[in-house]
Amino acid sequence: MQHPADDIICAPATGRGGAVSIVRLSGSGSLELADRVLKLRRGKVSDAPGFSLRFGVAEGLDEVLVSIFRAPHSYTGEDMVEISCHASPFVVSSLMERLCACGARPAEAGEFTRRAFVSGKMDLTQAEAVADLIAADSAAAHRLAFSQLRGAFSTRLKELRGKIVELSALLELELDFSEEDVEFADRSALRTLASEALSEVNRLAGTFKMGNAFKRGIPVAIVGAVNSGKSTLLNALLGEDRAIVSSIPGTTRDTVEELMVLRGVQYRFIDTAGLRETSETVEQMGIVRSLEQIGKAYVVIVLLDSTAAAEDLSEVVQSVKERISDDARVIWVRSKCDLTEDFASPGAKTGISAPQPASALPPGCKNGAFCTRLGIPQAIDISARTGIGLDELREAVAADDATLLDTNEAVMVTNLRHYESLRNAAADLTAFIDGLSSGTPTDLLSEDLRSATRHLGLIFGEITPDDVLGEVFGRFCVGK
Amino acid sequence: MQHPADDIICAPATGRGGAVSIVRLSGSGSLELADRVLKLRRGKVSDAPGFSLRFGVAEGLDEVLVSIFRAPHSYTGEDMVEISCHASPFVVSSLMERLCACGARPAEAGEFTRRAFVSGKMDLTQAEAVADLIAADSAAAHRLAFSQLRGAFSTRLKELRGKIVELSALLELELDFSEEDVEFADRSALRTLASEALSEVNRLAGTFKMGNAFKRGIPVAIVGAVNSGKSTLLNALLGEDRAIVSSIPGTTRDTVEELMVLRGVQYRFIDTAGLRETSETVEQMGIVRSLEQIGKAYVVIVLLDSTAAAEDLSEVVQSVKERISDDARVIWVRSKCDLTEDFASPGAKTGISAPQPASALPPGCKNGAFCTRLGIPQAIDISARTGIGLDELREAVAADDATLLDTNEAVMVTNLRHYESLRNAAADLTAFIDGLSSGTPTDLLSEDLRSATRHLGLIFGEITPDDVLGEVFGRFCVGK
Repeated sequence: MQHPADDIICAPATGRGGAVSIVRLSGSGSLELADRVLKLRRGKVSDAPGFSLRFGVAEGLDEVLVSIFRAPHSYTGEDMVEISCHASPFVVSSLMERLCACGARPAEAGEFTRRAFVSGKMDLTQAEAVADLIAADSAAAHRLAFSQLRGAFSTRLKELRGKIVELSALLELELDFSEEDVEFADRSALRTLASEALSEVNRLAGTFKMGNAFKRGIPVAIVGAVNSGKSTLLNALLGEDRAIVSSIPGTTRDTVEELMVLRGVQYRFIDTAGLRETSETVEQMGIVRSLEQIGKAYVVIVLLDSTAAAEDLSEVVQSVKERISDDARVIWVRSKCDLTEDFASPGAKTGISAPQPASALPPGCKNGAFCTRLGIPQAIDISARTGIGLDELREAVAADDATLLDTNEAVMVTNLRHYESLRNAAADLTAFIDGLSSGTPTDLLSEDLRSATRHLGLIFGEITPDDVLGEVFGRFCVGK
Repeated sequence: MQHPADDIICAPATGRGGAVSIVRLSGSGSLELADRVLKLRRGKVSDAPGFSLRFGVAEGLDEVLVSIFRAPHSYTGEDMVEISCHASPFVVSSLMERLCACGARPAEAGEFTRRAFVSGKMDLTQAEAVADLIAADSAAAHRLAFSQLRGAFSTRLKELRGKIVELSALLELELDFSEEDVEFADRSALRTLASEALSEVNRLAGTFKMGNAFKRGIPVAIVGAVNSGKSTLLNALLGEDRAIVSSIPGTTRDTVEELMVLRGVQYRFIDTAGLRETSETVEQMGIVRSLEQIGKAYVVIVLLDSTAAAEDLSEVVQSVKERISDDARVIWVRSKCDLTEDFASPGAKTGISAPQPASALPPGCKNGAFCTRLGIPQAIDISARTGIGLDELREAVAADDATLLDTNEAVMVTNLRHYESLRNAAADLTAFIDGLSSGTPTDLLSEDLRSATRHLGLIFGEITPDDVLGEVFGRFCVGK
């Protein structure tokens, strides 16, 4: 159990720039401290009711607007004052100096939210969601964070933990009457309950891969031989969305990641343009490093140069098929399609009209033969140079990812800490189920359940083994 | 007379980053509009009293804190709502979209403050002070802006204008009785009053040069021959204050300005390091461009290389003396003093102890002979290399500038628009005084005073010639 802090913290709550800045104070005595720094137009901060606003002046420094909150009705659950001043770095730092001179101290990172957690205003997953929400830069990432902030994830977890606590209670009953050597709990009923809990834990843990991808951007690899047009394609795809795209240094020196939001979901395009040629066959084609990305990517765009030799393309297709993971989505793309004879412009379909000689454009897509020859189901014809096929490719990348959030009711694990606790809880439940079969003593079985409960409780920050006891005794009759 | 706007404007009021962002709404109907976008935990925005805070939710987007203001008790004087949300660009832009979808429009730059002016919440000088306050990055610039925001400048102006309006009233009386050909007003009393007003207008206009320098940084030129150590000195001076210094491109390609705050006042050091050598005598010494800076600078640091030939130094001194403006402050500096024989470390005085052989340090400063030889009153011995004399030089640069603010009671003109209006008013008053002497008809004299009043009124945005009439009729008896 953590105890409320007894000092007053202060910090600027807003970023630099703009018209208005906010400096926050939290802790018992905040209102009285504010009175020493601010002179209200009427009355005092410490006399103002909670949830009220007052005009005031920081003597010789600025005219301010003061928001007053009284415990427990504030973000932190403590007495709080928010001072809106003009957005001048000079004013903000001077105000901070005055507050600190009167006894406040600069808050540490996340300290206001930590106090909100300690005060019980939010659980740990909600506190974590605050940071995720602020960082979210796509609708999908935002939606997951907001859902978590609103408690959807911890509600699900608490239900789950409730079931396990119930299991524990049944077992604890046996322990209380252990001298009588009686099995109260129906072992097969216990097994059923535990298996249900385990599969729910596993289901939640299973959302981590995708939840994390929604949060950080779904990895998309563009692979293909040297000169198949990877970089050109990437630039063409990003071109129209440059404003919402940023380059971030990748995990390796040779990889640069580009972010793009499609239908509210962020994708992380992994550029493998920095490939070096080596001596072996496949490596000579420069796709080795591209292939390495296949294992990590959720979407793999395979560029097949329509002007390349058929045997070279077959080799690329074969290499990709060997390395692709089961749950990755492969998009086969025939690049430089404007240079091929069997190409028909998809312009009528996508609304793109590319300037080409009419003679080069027989009606209808003719890459069926190309696909059959390479043993792939279908391919999108693109020409990064002319813009042909780019919309179709974007649609193929985005696919149904956005709707996946709906089917998951927006409860997905996005946090490694949560994922690891879920995995630990799953291991505990598995041990419990195995123990039931092998006749493990009740007290050891009980310990497995306590451990699973603890691991789930770790997620939302309620480490209270008393829960289990409470559940047990609550089921007992009065007077025992 | 400007009329209140009838539409609702919205805009983010805070900068990017931080923990909290604010989106503002202003205009009649803002509270009702907020109700369409936000759901409060209890009640409605439009039912909440002014100066109250409410928790709420922007459905599926964010948990927010809502500040409610009712006209005329708000910044703009209109109904206003401020929505505090998490500092996520995604949330802020989504919130803006929702507000605009419900009928608000994005505010133009400064539009909230413009509405505050139109509503009479502040005059034009106060509105201008808001922008100055936000931009102020030294105590001096901040102090001037805050004083102006609090109305010190416009109070002074209004008093001044009151005197001129009084003058007008005396004259207008004559006009009313013009058929009777009587001079009511005592011409010499009028002249005295007008002269007093004129000298006050001139005094205010006279503060502009320094007020503007306080606002933008007081220009300091470092001049000296090539190799006298200008750049080294500048770097040494800035060295310890790098954190609060920034390089900004100067007005000419060859000039880079460095900002430094000394005793709360910002100085703009003009680096003339990019000098090119030319053919003529003085130009060969590379100080021509440095000398050009002398005319613009308020403080001129003249570097005299202690290792240079005496005749070269004399030429530098002569050139500087010829070009220096009367009100500029010249600081003579003997550079590379650690290389001279007659040098005594000022370490004991400034607290700097430089590592030097004791034999090279005869006691007491001996640059008196050096100064006498060059015909300068005194010189600061410095060595940028060792740090000797830098503190003394900084003190000489800052001098009494900070206290100048006190003696001016912090009312200084910092705005070119104000300065020009003051100059125009001065011209009107001068014309009036000249007209009194040359027997100009009363109606033309009266027009001069109206013009002076108008020019002063332009400064704080009250263009109401009705004032003059009101003053006149207010002095008449009832019934006339």
